Amino acid sequence: MSEPSPQEFRGLVEGIFKQIPFIQEIGLELHDFDLEQQILSAAFSLKPELIGNSWTNILHGGVIATALDTVGGLTAMVAAYHRMGGAIEWEEKVQRLTRLGTVDMRVDYLKPGRGQHFICSGTVLRVGNKLVVTRMELHNDAQDLIATGTATFLY
Amino acid sequence: MSEPSPQEFRGLVEGIFKQIPFIQEIGLELHDFDLEQQILSAAFSLKPELIGNSWTNILHGGVIATALDTVGGLTAMVAAYHRMGGAIEWEEKVQRLTRLGTVDMRVDYLKPGRGQHFICSGTVLRVGNKLVVTRMELHNDAQDLIATGTATFLY
Amino acid sequence: MSEPSPQEFRGLVEGIFKQIPFIQEIGLELHDFDLEQQILSAAFSLKPELIGNSWTNILHGGVIATALDTVGGLTAMVAAYHRMGGAIEWEEKVQRLTRLGTVDMRVDYLKPGRGQHFICSGTVLRVGNKLVVTRMELHNDAQDLIATGTATFLY
Amino acid sequence: MSEPSPQEFRGLVEGIFKQIPFIQEIGLELHDFDLEQQILSAAFSLKPELIGNSWTNILHGGVIATALDTVGGLTAMVAAYHRMGGAIEWEEKVQRLTRLGTVDMRVDYLKPGRGQHFICSGTVLRVGNKLVVTRMELHNDAQDLIATGTATFLY
Repeated sequence: MSEPSPQEFRGLVEGIFKQIPFIQEIGLELHDFDLEQQILSAAFSLKPELIGNSWTNILHGGVIATALDTVGGLTAMVAAYHRMGGAIEWEEKVQRLTRLGTVDMRVDYLKPGRGQHFICSGTVLRVGNKLVVTRMELHNDAQDLIATGTATFLY
Repeated sequence: MSEPSPQEFRGLVEGIFKQIPFIQEIGLELHDFDLEQQILSAAFSLKPELIGNSWTNILHGGVIATALDTVGGLTAMVAAYHRMGGAIEWEEKVQRLTRLGTVDMRVDYLKPGRGQHFICSGTVLRVGNKLVVTRMELHNDAQDLIATGTATFLY
Repeated sequence: MSEPSPQEFRGLVEGIFKQIPFIQEIGLELHDFDLEQQILSAAFSLKPELIGNSWTNILHGGVIATALDTVGGLTAMVAAYHRMGGAIEWEEKVQRLTRLGTVDMRVDYLKPGRGQHFICSGTVLRVGNKLVVTRMELHNDAQDLIATGTATFLY
Repeated sequence: MSEPSPQEFRGLVEGIFKQIPFIQEIGLELHDFDLEQQILSAAFSLKPELIGNSWTNILHGGVIATALDTVGGLTAMVAAYHRMGGAIEWEEKVQRLTRLGTVDMRVDYLKPGRGQHFICSGTVLRVGNKLVVTRMELHNDAQDLIATGTATFLY
């Protein structure tokens, strides 16, 4: 297979999201996917299973960490893909990208995870030929910044 | 209500675990609960929904972060409870403990989350009159150290 | 003493910087100090003692961590000061601010610390009545982003 | 040059410590260097320049971060050296080890840095063919655990 178009690439990533059971469990869906400007985000909605405190109806911290980790990984994948450039065959790129994994992550819980809809976005801090470092933010539908994270990925 | 016995305390924590939807979703159950030696752990088993990679059948990083965060919070709760000591009424202690929340957490993913059963344990690094810092470890049934974490809690 | 003017406040902070031996050792000096917009930064220049690698002449990682920690603390101090508001006496504010300390910090080393002059700036992610979380960035004179950090402070 | 003996290796590391200006500035010296059991530590003593608070005479947080980063890097170097094994030439090992750098680090400040003498030790959490993750601890002469850290290194 040859290099995919932006639409095909989006389709591939949506396919990956659908094949990962825990991403489906949380309900994370691809939102922004602008490869040019590297604006990447995923969205999810409140469901009873995601609650961490039944009195206050806020998200469990693990749901927040899952969203940050997933969007960090997505951002790292796109950054690594661009970094590998035209000299590497698409098949080899795919192989390296499927091996991409989180090395470590810091999460800062800034406000209670209150809301009905949440958007998690990622940006790249560093991309090398082995590592990507990304920063992630989680906002609710009132535009409150619920949490931020920083993560290191190896590919 | 007066100060609970160790067995009553264990029952209370088990009750809290059962009332938190996302903990039930992951399937985390209280395992060790030795208040004297502050040995605290929770266990869970592999389920299809927890998988992060359908080819390799390993846990999603978010499941690992959820286990570390939950056991860190449990450890912090017990540490804060002891720290408050005999001068504070049980009712006030309960109020402060129910407000306990994660401030930040670092997770290090050391090995792929392979296995059928997992145990996550916690220890206290620092306990003050406002903050607790804990360290957590996640092992699989082959005794592999899958991940470690360090987290700061406010109560 | 009554509440200080912005200029007096800047003078107080410069006085604190001058009284901290390790800040003098590194050569960190207050740079931006805009209380209104909470733009806070400190600057320092390369000296032989700050080098971490004699072949490449780059800063030691510990120098970078020192700059991030110091500017994070400065940012947290200003945020905590504003948060305490008009109801608390200046003397009590001073007492609480002098007790402010770093709880934990993450540093991401993004590029080698090359350059002659460096500026480290801070922003506030969260300010509560006990904790402040800040983010810090270190740039060199070529505007390269050398390192970022996130830190939690207790006051 | 051929593979060094343990004594020669210790000599090499001591030479590196002496050639790094900022390590000399802090006064860090190699302490334990047991390659077999991978027990590695460095020691330093209080000097006026290292103080972060002139009233309480405690270490600046940046000094603590410097000690943790340096000992983490030393531990990672030894772990990477062993990991490369017998198949790789000593010259190539040296080249890769001199490129070893800190990717990120978390520091937890547990107690004020009070004391006259300090020992910082490191252990390995993960060693791969590109990355090493280490944990570090800083104790004072009263055996108080002053700070811990976790860091990721690339080689």
